Amino acid sequence: MIPDAASAGWSLDPRLERDAVPVGDMPLCHVLLINDANYPWLLLVPRRRGIIEITELDYIEQAQLMSELMQASRSLKAITSCDKINIAALGNVVPQLHVHVVARSRGDAAWPKPVWGAVPARAYEQAAMEKLMVPLRQRLALTPM
Amino acid sequence: MIPDAASAGWSLDPRLERDAVPVGDMPLCHVLLINDANYPWLLLVPRRRGIIEITELDYIEQAQLMSELMQASRSLKAITSCDKINIAALGNVVPQLHVHVVARSRGDAAWPKPVWGAVPARAYEQAAMEKLMVPLRQRLALTPM
Repeated sequence: MIPDAASAGWSLDPRLERDAVPVGDMPLCHVLLINDANYPWLLLVPRRRGIIEITELDYIEQAQLMSELMQASRSLKAITSCDKINIAALGNVVPQLHVHVVARSRGDAAWPKPVWGAVPARAYEQAAMEKLMVPLRQRLALTPM
Repeated sequence: MIPDAASAGWSLDPRLERDAVPVGDMPLCHVLLINDANYPWLLLVPRRRGIIEITELDYIEQAQLMSELMQASRSLKAITSCDKINIAALGNVVPQLHVHVVARSRGDAAWPKPVWGAVPARAYEQAAMEKLMVPLRQRLALTPM
């Protein structure tokens, strides 16, 4: 974790890390890869304590979140050549603010439906995860956790 | 529609207006209310021709989109006293960029699941729609269509 004053007191909700692997830290968001080989699927979690809605971030943080979501989207698109990026902030189950960025392809396990609850997660083989993780960290300019 | 040079050539995908009612125009986005009384549910559609992904908007438009999404979120929250705002840009079926902003309440028809495909839409009674539409237009500073 990059230590900074604004993120003091923040810690990742254990339910978000349970089925995910840490990718690294962007300036605002902690980034995780959901361990589901059905779709390349990132979570961006702003390191701000007690935040549930995007509206609760200040204006600069909201702009930074948009910028990091765009960087994550472009990275996924470049690495996976997917057909569509899905972005969503839901949080009905786990309130800690987290934003999904999912690379969708025609014919993927849920296409064209949203991914939530569509099909059971399929854990990555080690090699397949590395193949995604290495260019992801490169493009997101992240250092390994 | 507010006429402006940047939105030249843009028109709303007929599939987006089929089950929705126009609310008005924000500086970037055309706003619609989905005709489903299960949840107060807005669509924000940037009036930019041929745009599918948020990454295709320029930086200023991305910032403006974030700002309008926040205004829509705060308005829905204030009017409905909902428990959670869900925001999503999916577009797997209708590619024209559109962002969902949904007011979710514990115990609503799909809670805590996402709304897409959860339960059949339930059309508004005229009075119920007006009760939502009037304060929405007021808070979003929109003139009626």
